[in-house]
Amino acid sequence: METPVTKLFNIEFPVVSGGMVWCSGWRLAAAVSAAGGLGLIGAGSMHPETLAEHIAKTRAALAGTGRPFGVNVPLFYPEIEKIIGILINEKVPVVFTSGGNPALYTERLKSAGITVAHVVASARFARKAEAAGVDAVVAEGFEAGGHNGREEITTMTLIPQVRAVTKLPLLAAGGIATGRGMLATMALGADGVQMGTRFALSQESSAHEAFKNLCTTIGEGDTMLCLKKLSPVRMIRNDFYRQVAEAEARGASAEELRELLGAKRSKRGIFEGNLQEGELEIGQIASLIRKIEPVADIMQNIANELREAVKEVRQWEI
Amino acid sequence: METPVTKLFNIEFPVVSGGMVWCSGWRLAAAVSAAGGLGLIGAGSMHPETLAEHIAKTRAALAGTGRPFGVNVPLFYPEIEKIIGILINEKVPVVFTSGGNPALYTERLKSAGITVAHVVASARFARKAEAAGVDAVVAEGFEAGGHNGREEITTMTLIPQVRAVTKLPLLAAGGIATGRGMLATMALGADGVQMGTRFALSQESSAHEAFKNLCTTIGEGDTMLCLKKLSPVRMIRNDFYRQVAEAEARGASAEELRELLGAKRSKRGIFEGNLQEGELEIGQIASLIRKIEPVADIMQNIANELREAVKEVRQWEI
Repeated sequence: METPVTKLFNIEFPVVSGGMVWCSGWRLAAAVSAAGGLGLIGAGSMHPETLAEHIAKTRAALAGTGRPFGVNVPLFYPEIEKIIGILINEKVPVVFTSGGNPALYTERLKSAGITVAHVVASARFARKAEAAGVDAVVAEGFEAGGHNGREEITTMTLIPQVRAVTKLPLLAAGGIATGRGMLATMALGADGVQMGTRFALSQESSAHEAFKNLCTTIGEGDTMLCLKKLSPVRMIRNDFYRQVAEAEARGASAEELRELLGAKRSKRGIFEGNLQEGELEIGQIASLIRKIEPVADIMQNIANELREAVKEVRQWEI
Repeated sequence: METPVTKLFNIEFPVVSGGMVWCSGWRLAAAVSAAGGLGLIGAGSMHPETLAEHIAKTRAALAGTGRPFGVNVPLFYPEIEKIIGILINEKVPVVFTSGGNPALYTERLKSAGITVAHVVASARFARKAEAAGVDAVVAEGFEAGGHNGREEITTMTLIPQVRAVTKLPLLAAGGIATGRGMLATMALGADGVQMGTRFALSQESSAHEAFKNLCTTIGEGDTMLCLKKLSPVRMIRNDFYRQVAEAEARGASAEELRELLGAKRSKRGIFEGNLQEGELEIGQIASLIRKIEPVADIMQNIANELREAVKEVRQWEI
């Protein structure tokens, strides 16, 4: 399938796996790229040396295939300068930046020959990303897991508005886990999709099995966006969430919430499998995923679902 | 266009206009039905006598056309018994119930020969509605204006999950204002759509001109879901909203919020055009609507957009 996204990244099918903390290591990134999509390594939960190692392993896994891969970098990352240095030294083919000002590093990355996409949660920031010179935009809605925009714009309302302000290749993200979701967002104007939750819950994801298994049992309302006085995060309603919600309901300050959050909560939950005390970041669409499958099967299913949905639309008489 | 929704309601095009407080009088309902959709009168902001008058006027406007129409009734309405009596006496063709237990009145309405749909915000409630014997389900996402579900499930994640639990004719609602939005939600499993915001901002809507004009200028993040300790409502971020947000941030109780809300806030804002003190209920998708057009044009545009989007999908090579 050819779209502006497949052409830009030189991939076969316009599906990117999100660079998710504690999930998106080299195994996941390489598997998605090997299957014809674009796999991203998530630098947000890696020390710079760890990232370099994952880049090397992804390269090794894809050796001889000519397939590209990418790295997602949250721009508020403390060791951001070191990370940017590694990405440039390693000449990583694609970098997705998120959670910060795209004007900061886009030019440096691009002059090193790297293709750059930036993740936004509004059309306003899509414009800023375009002005900063990015090659593509990822528009991520309120339903997405983990860190999220303050304006709570959903994928359904976000995509047409981002499409209206930019001609850049556009990836839709948030609430998409199937070929039908792909068709839906592409009908709204996207050229492809970034799926996080779908791949966080794959066999190749480095998340803890207990976390993955819990995600395949949660119901449709079992994630919520919270910590809005800090930086909004979507997580599962577990014991830790309930403490946060209780504190927020009584008007807890940002200070108090920061203390309650403490350090390494997401690692404890997602990577170490502490389902009570951890911060269990996952998207709302998790409730549609009931099995942990290998990436190759997931990619095949998405393509089949898309083909079936397109076939149905072709039969409409209007 | 034929779908389970057009067949159930005996309409030409699977678009229903929501029964919105202070917007959906007989003019709007009759115009949508006359244009081949299903127009709903919004009983939520009407005294029983007013409703009877609007039903009579809608009937008169549609006389000789054979077109149906409907009434939306919030089940928590104080004079609900009187309203149900009127709907049955008048043999209104279609009733949409919302915001309450569908088991309460579905059987009475259905034995009077009325087609009944129920509005839900989760798959769990879709199941309950089906068990109560409704003929159709409206699944409305977090991005919708006005009263909304507690679980904050977006349209993108809600529709496939409701589709998975019921074979009933399914209408998608929340964040849909165009033919592209229609295709998106129908690709996810809906058989048609209910649009609220799109028709609240039509010439035939009975909302105040000042309210309508404001809505055509607001940006993508200018509505928020709030009053969650009472019943969650999406409204524009005006002075009144800021008072609510400030109270909520410091942990105001339900009591305090109820007092702050007071009475007739939505009437003051939407119907009387008090843009500072009123409760300005509208959907997130308002930021995509920049013109107040007549219903006939809106319906034509939606059909054209849908046709164009379908044509594009037909050209995909996958």
